[in-house]
Amino acid sequence: MGKVDPYEVSGDIDYEKLIKQFGVSKMTPGILNKLGTKNLLLKRGAFYAHRDLNKILKGKFAIVSGRGPSAKMHIAHLAMFKAVVDLQKKHGCFVFIPFSDDEKILVKGTDYVKTQEMAIENAKDILALGFDPRKTKIMFDLKHMNQDVYNLAINASSKITLSTVKAVMGFKDSKNIGSFFYPAIQIAHILYPTFKRKIPTVMITAIDQDPFVRLARDVAGRMGLKKPGALTIKFLPGLSGGAKMSSSDPSSALYTDDSDAEIERKIKRAFSGGRETLAEHRKYGGNPDIDASFQYLKFFLEEDDKKLAEIEKRYKSGDLMTGELKKYTISKAKKFFVQHRKNRSKIKIEKYLI
Amino acid sequence: MGKVDPYEVSGDIDYEKLIKQFGVSKMTPGILNKLGTKNLLLKRGAFYAHRDLNKILKGKFAIVSGRGPSAKMHIAHLAMFKAVVDLQKKHGCFVFIPFSDDEKILVKGTDYVKTQEMAIENAKDILALGFDPRKTKIMFDLKHMNQDVYNLAINASSKITLSTVKAVMGFKDSKNIGSFFYPAIQIAHILYPTFKRKIPTVMITAIDQDPFVRLARDVAGRMGLKKPGALTIKFLPGLSGGAKMSSSDPSSALYTDDSDAEIERKIKRAFSGGRETLAEHRKYGGNPDIDASFQYLKFFLEEDDKKLAEIEKRYKSGDLMTGELKKYTISKAKKFFVQHRKNRSKIKIEKYLI
Repeated sequence: MGKVDPYEVSGDIDYEKLIKQFGVSKMTPGILNKLGTKNLLLKRGAFYAHRDLNKILKGKFAIVSGRGPSAKMHIAHLAMFKAVVDLQKKHGCFVFIPFSDDEKILVKGTDYVKTQEMAIENAKDILALGFDPRKTKIMFDLKHMNQDVYNLAINASSKITLSTVKAVMGFKDSKNIGSFFYPAIQIAHILYPTFKRKIPTVMITAIDQDPFVRLARDVAGRMGLKKPGALTIKFLPGLSGGAKMSSSDPSSALYTDDSDAEIERKIKRAFSGGRETLAEHRKYGGNPDIDASFQYLKFFLEEDDKKLAEIEKRYKSGDLMTGELKKYTISKAKKFFVQHRKNRSKIKIEKYLI
Repeated sequence: MGKVDPYEVSGDIDYEKLIKQFGVSKMTPGILNKLGTKNLLLKRGAFYAHRDLNKILKGKFAIVSGRGPSAKMHIAHLAMFKAVVDLQKKHGCFVFIPFSDDEKILVKGTDYVKTQEMAIENAKDILALGFDPRKTKIMFDLKHMNQDVYNLAINASSKITLSTVKAVMGFKDSKNIGSFFYPAIQIAHILYPTFKRKIPTVMITAIDQDPFVRLARDVAGRMGLKKPGALTIKFLPGLSGGAKMSSSDPSSALYTDDSDAEIERKIKRAFSGGRETLAEHRKYGGNPDIDASFQYLKFFLEEDDKKLAEIEKRYKSGDLMTGELKKYTISKAKKFFVQHRKNRSKIKIEKYLI
């Protein structure tokens, strides 16, 4: 299996193994039912694991889902935050979205000014998805570090040894001291709603960020706070056929600032599950499971379950050709981004600041 | 020689050796002359070393002198801050006084609420010494962490490896991650005035805090900031005859909240340089260099040089008895604290907050 940790995800992903490796619990129909939204990712199996949701869903809870603003956002990032929006609508949750611009500088050595600019662009994309301004707070660490968050970080950092961080993160002594401290800041992000509202937090994230959840769970009790839970999402498929969309390979994903022409070009070049020739495709049918266009429809673009099932059936049978599937996906993607850009232009970040 | 590092000062102190060990420069009459105040500590040799003052005193500079609020303040603490006040008056400097309540929690494991309360009490004592409210800013890290200071800490922490902090501070992997990060916060304190005002900072402190100055000097250039200098004070004598006043042994020092009766009792019991018997004292004279009362007059209480010289001469000759010297010291100390309490009661901390 590939490598999965907070700073590297590569190779093939085996979710059953990840569940065991990270010690999370497998998603169940009962929990999905309690989460109870018609969100695409939730109803189509993108959330495969969790921590403590059996218990936490019995009462009030808050959601934390952060963003490391090192690059533009692509459609899979948006889809995950759309799931958060839908959960907020369903459960009336308080949602906290911290932007770890500081982490990017510490761990990736990104440029200070560019990282802060990127954080603002990312925030607009996220907030455009429909978060309730009365129940949603965002924070850029390098712009408005909140005193409670800072104090939680100091408190957490006083309770975690260097040995523990070395074991969890695998850092060597040649790393900068900020990288070793950063887990305390992320723990503070996770525990902030619990500290303010005395209700547990659910961290919504991919499994690579789970070590931070685990550390937060380790110290929460000693900080007099409820343990956070987690809702864990799969690495969503990219256009090039890999298991995860890559932020560093721009052609592997659709970005929120892609032009219509770029959207069209990228989907046309996307990895396909169709056959080599028209005749073979008609005879044997295509494979939607590895077809980037179909996966895009499934997880991001096609709300209508019947329509999706029909497309899948027709593609498998060879009735629907790759070109037709791509054409449909292009039209859906263009429509999605037109609406997204419109929503995005209306966002006033100030309304959401912590 | 004893041990001197940021978290332990013990044993006998050899200042010549410390100068070599820490790589600071020996104080010179020329620099003292440029500092140019009639402050007791400055004119009576309490500042024995420096970094870069030859260069820095040629232009504008700011002063940083912080306080780790783990205990009540005694008269030696006040005396050092009084030197800062006098330097501010002479040079019109901006002075920044950070209270590292966070460090106390990280390194000493002190109680969160008590540490913050102590910080406020300490701040009142310090500000009562006469700082100019227009040119003085204080900050309690756990109460109003300033965004610029936080960002400077993140920036500094991205440029210092764990190996470096281990070498400088001598910490092991069993220490908490906050302790390893804390030097970045202290560096941020030191560099904050330079960041805001583009002028160098002089850190005024005892040599045990010099490792932070050295780290700040190491990274300042890479952060695009001028290197800080330092003005280094001796460990001031306690009442029990040790080289340093001890904050953990209450009878070894005069505290700002000591009653008149306590002041009298403590000085009466203080270590004396007098002889065993009256007759011997008359015959051989006393030793002012090891006499706590005389040292108190010299560094804290007797402004008048002629008067001090006369007392020294009379004590050495056996003309002045220990009882008389103590009586005089008690009257000076009581007078000092009466005035201090009066000044302290008028302090409004809000006027000085960053």
